[in-house]
Amino acid sequence: MTLRPGVTSALTVTLPEWAARLLDDQRPHTSLEARMKLAVDLARRNVEQATGGPFGAAVFESESGRLVSVGTNLVVANSNAFLHAEIVALMFAQRAVGSYSLRAEGLPEHDLFTSCAPCAMCLGAVLWSGVSRLVSGAAREDALEIGFEEGPVFDASYEYIVERGVTCLAGVLRDEARAVLQEYRASGAPIYNA
Amino acid sequence: MTLRPGVTSALTVTLPEWAARLLDDQRPHTSLEARMKLAVDLARRNVEQATGGPFGAAVFESESGRLVSVGTNLVVANSNAFLHAEIVALMFAQRAVGSYSLRAEGLPEHDLFTSCAPCAMCLGAVLWSGVSRLVSGAAREDALEIGFEEGPVFDASYEYIVERGVTCLAGVLRDEARAVLQEYRASGAPIYNA
Repeated sequence: MTLRPGVTSALTVTLPEWAARLLDDQRPHTSLEARMKLAVDLARRNVEQATGGPFGAAVFESESGRLVSVGTNLVVANSNAFLHAEIVALMFAQRAVGSYSLRAEGLPEHDLFTSCAPCAMCLGAVLWSGVSRLVSGAAREDALEIGFEEGPVFDASYEYIVERGVTCLAGVLRDEARAVLQEYRASGAPIYNA
Repeated sequence: MTLRPGVTSALTVTLPEWAARLLDDQRPHTSLEARMKLAVDLARRNVEQATGGPFGAAVFESESGRLVSVGTNLVVANSNAFLHAEIVALMFAQRAVGSYSLRAEGLPEHDLFTSCAPCAMCLGAVLWSGVSRLVSGAAREDALEIGFEEGPVFDASYEYIVERGVTCLAGVLRDEARAVLQEYRASGAPIYNA
């Protein structure tokens, strides 16, 4: 098709190669801590590799602990404010299972692990994703403390998604996850969406 | 790079050709109603062309009325629960201006017009997008009425984003926008994310 110069009709989201390679290791992540450690490692390596902000996320099959997808914050590199780690991990998980819902018929239950409590956008996305469980590391206050915004998330927001069948756990490996945020601020790297 | 079979490290979002072609017409949309009419037309045509759900959105330069990007709901076709019309329009707008914020230095102010009040995810995305104004057509209740979910959106959610400099207008061409939703339900098409 012919479009005006400058008009793009396709937009590609690419995982950093180092992150995509984590999927090569398919040993099960059986404990909560092992799953969260992967999300926090994604956050740390995303900063070290200069591929984005200090946030990481991963989707696992709840029972088997099989890793389904990974995500890191890709906002700045992609000029795309919506590529938070959670959205990236969930998009690739849905691609992997071939459905717009991780609760589609015949699928096992899925967990989303995220290195930091989700912002308002990502918490909404959790509801549409079909995950059965949301597990976070660092708290909203830990992100605010270094100058990131989190948007309109209230206790009632969590109540809403819990009522719709999503189990929410917070504060798993919080100290380790918060440390990545602190190191990011100390490095002087940009706080976008401040 | 070599990945396990079935692992994809890139994911492409493609606008339907009929929608991308709307950008060929660069006559300014000067009134609120003209801008909303485009969003509602996108919603209607998305159903007629069988490219997705009954939701459309567009980004305009606030003052000039120049059309910057369009979006339609692409959830089912892309197996991607996050491709709501608003997210699609905002992603392509950021791509068009080359920044993760539509408020980046040197840019004019931007409006997001959406045929239906945004869900929780998209309302969060509005905050990250950098638009100065959010204008919606059909109301949350109009979407709920036909069985769609909207997620945890509260009066306080709007207060939060208004306090951060986003002007919100609702109910522009509401009847026309609601009619598209009603026609969609009458057609028996799927209510995903119910």
